[in-house]
Amino acid sequence: MKKIALLILDGLGDRPCNVLHGLTPLQFAYKPNMDRMISEGQGGFMYPVSPGTNTGSDTSHLSLLGYDPRDVYTGRGPFEAMGLGLLMNPGDIAFRANFATVDESGTVIDRRAGRISEGTEALAKAISMEIEGYSFRVRPGVEHRAALVVSGPDLSDKISDSDPHEAGKRVQEIHAIDGSGKKTADLVNRYLKEAGRILNAHGVNLKRKKEGLKPANALLLRGVGKAPLLKPFHEKYGMKGSCIAGIPLIRGIGHLAGLSIVYDERMTGSYDSDYDLKVKKAISVLENEDFVIINFKATDVAGHDGDAFRKVEVIEKVDRAIAPLLSLAKSTVIAITGDHSTPCEMKEHSGDPLPLLVFSDGIRTDFCSYFDERHTIMGSLRLASGDLMQYLLALSGRAEKYGA
Amino acid sequence: MKKIALLILDGLGDRPCNVLHGLTPLQFAYKPNMDRMISEGQGGFMYPVSPGTNTGSDTSHLSLLGYDPRDVYTGRGPFEAMGLGLLMNPGDIAFRANFATVDESGTVIDRRAGRISEGTEALAKAISMEIEGYSFRVRPGVEHRAALVVSGPDLSDKISDSDPHEAGKRVQEIHAIDGSGKKTADLVNRYLKEAGRILNAHGVNLKRKKEGLKPANALLLRGVGKAPLLKPFHEKYGMKGSCIAGIPLIRGIGHLAGLSIVYDERMTGSYDSDYDLKVKKAISVLENEDFVIINFKATDVAGHDGDAFRKVEVIEKVDRAIAPLLSLAKSTVIAITGDHSTPCEMKEHSGDPLPLLVFSDGIRTDFCSYFDERHTIMGSLRLASGDLMQYLLALSGRAEKYGA
Repeated sequence: MKKIALLILDGLGDRPCNVLHGLTPLQFAYKPNMDRMISEGQGGFMYPVSPGTNTGSDTSHLSLLGYDPRDVYTGRGPFEAMGLGLLMNPGDIAFRANFATVDESGTVIDRRAGRISEGTEALAKAISMEIEGYSFRVRPGVEHRAALVVSGPDLSDKISDSDPHEAGKRVQEIHAIDGSGKKTADLVNRYLKEAGRILNAHGVNLKRKKEGLKPANALLLRGVGKAPLLKPFHEKYGMKGSCIAGIPLIRGIGHLAGLSIVYDERMTGSYDSDYDLKVKKAISVLENEDFVIINFKATDVAGHDGDAFRKVEVIEKVDRAIAPLLSLAKSTVIAITGDHSTPCEMKEHSGDPLPLLVFSDGIRTDFCSYFDERHTIMGSLRLASGDLMQYLLALSGRAEKYGA
Repeated sequence: MKKIALLILDGLGDRPCNVLHGLTPLQFAYKPNMDRMISEGQGGFMYPVSPGTNTGSDTSHLSLLGYDPRDVYTGRGPFEAMGLGLLMNPGDIAFRANFATVDESGTVIDRRAGRISEGTEALAKAISMEIEGYSFRVRPGVEHRAALVVSGPDLSDKISDSDPHEAGKRVQEIHAIDGSGKKTADLVNRYLKEAGRILNAHGVNLKRKKEGLKPANALLLRGVGKAPLLKPFHEKYGMKGSCIAGIPLIRGIGHLAGLSIVYDERMTGSYDSDYDLKVKKAISVLENEDFVIINFKATDVAGHDGDAFRKVEVIEKVDRAIAPLLSLAKSTVIAITGDHSTPCEMKEHSGDPLPLLVFSDGIRTDFCSYFDERHTIMGSLRLASGDLMQYLLALSGRAEKYGA
């Protein structure tokens, strides 16, 4: 049995770029390691979820790990919370939250607390607490935005918002939408009262009032969602594994799937990330475990920035960093692809298929010599992302026999 | 409307073999007929059930005939019975069985009757009988192993084992696991009593006792399973058809699907099988019927034996044998593929896709010139095994119009 390394260049897929004389960044880039891997291995295309599906990184990473988002995706709430760095476990609930200004009667003065830009880190920390064995964790986002995750037994997402969605209205009591929500609604109402007390008395807000700024003295909650119940990775595949990613969302999904999280601040999730470090960590993961997924985010960042040359540069950096993986061909099945396409001229995700390569000793080969959106046509693979894990299991000698 | 011939080279797919200088057996073999068929027809890949699924011959043949094993596969019990040559009809139940030694009090002395190796054929025959309109058929396997099939109306598989699974324990009364099993449990208990009487008095056992060997005086039953309820082939496709196979499992599946069985002892299911005879029989089937499936087993045997040269030899023999089919192109759609891959260097099944060719007059062509795991990349076909029959129906002018 071999081990499996799955390398995801986020937003990798692209379309012809004018500034690259009609080539895609992958076609333009000098990437001898990827080209060698596809020449000695297999190439082709991978459809994110299904042909033409314009996935986000959340749905596509779920699918890449073999969890069909059409079954398990519970909406953006939990994934935004994970994106802010709140790890969730199956059954936890998450809210999108605003730091807001509320008067003594409980009427909302400003849903965005004057678009507060400083101090939310301290406020979030102050109102992260335990109540009756339930943990409440708040993490701030940009300006007034934040997320709240509640962890504990038997939580329900069948509850209403506390956010009245309009200034001048009173903060809403959270109520149960169906019978299962009663206990959770009570619990969160109690938490919000306590959080309000703490926020009102907090130094950040006392200082804001002194400066004539609106205090961030309430947390408004909306869009509750439950973390998907994923079958733990090691139960699903009989392999222990780790997730290496610079951005919190991908680490959150890995954690939810039961993968170990390998992280270091030098993995920044942007252009300045330390790719060599990621690959080094991956190799040491594979010494003890059977599976590793690495996400390289900066290809997607360059796509969103519309910077084709930058995308080329990121691809070339990743290609240099992965050179040590070539020597693992005997023991490991290595797959390289993206989670979705982010064409530079669109600056957003598209539903285009992804180039895919699979490299290992002794597997079949095909006619691919270059790893890009055009030459992978000469490859043998045409897979939906949800079938990739099963295909890699088969190549690594891990596919359980179905029948006799 | 054309007729359809589906040729399955069992375990055909392979990976690069060192002894073949990195070629697969199909690449290495001289097979001018298959190469001509794919050159004049269509080529590509077929995924057994779905990409990366590591199928057995049972699940994959069900799928090839258009019966989705994910819906109809009822576990190994009935398929092991069919593998021993017991034809089953939908609704029949099958047990795995041991010939065992039991004392007068009903306590198991030896679950394997001293690993009895001779005489089980006669014993099985002696205890194959009818009781109250139900037929009980026993067929021996290797040593003490056997299978029992019970046929008749309203049988249930919701019943327990008689096998106590341990020497020193008493043979169990079979009991119903739910209400539906009562009648079947009673019936099988009555049969086992009668079978015990016959076995105790049987010449084979009298002789064994005289020689100081443990008598095979009881049949222990376990792992009951019901034969899948398959929609009869002629109802499903509006075609009568036949199944030609050397090994009992495939004949069993064909029978279960309502195909006629064409068999001759010269079809051995191994290296010495008479391929010319199979092809001759297939041609005469097609004179009266619209469909024939032929299974050539020896490619799989060579894969399991790890003998790449032997696999090459089998492929070349089959290729010579199918020459007469080339002249049927006007009247028949001919497909050649495998049921799963059995790479010689693995000596077991893998989840790799199968090369596929389809040959007939007047169909589209593509860029395939060679029928193997590499050159079929140049072909047009990428099908899951469960879609193959529908595709062949369409090529033969038999696909019912869907819509107007």
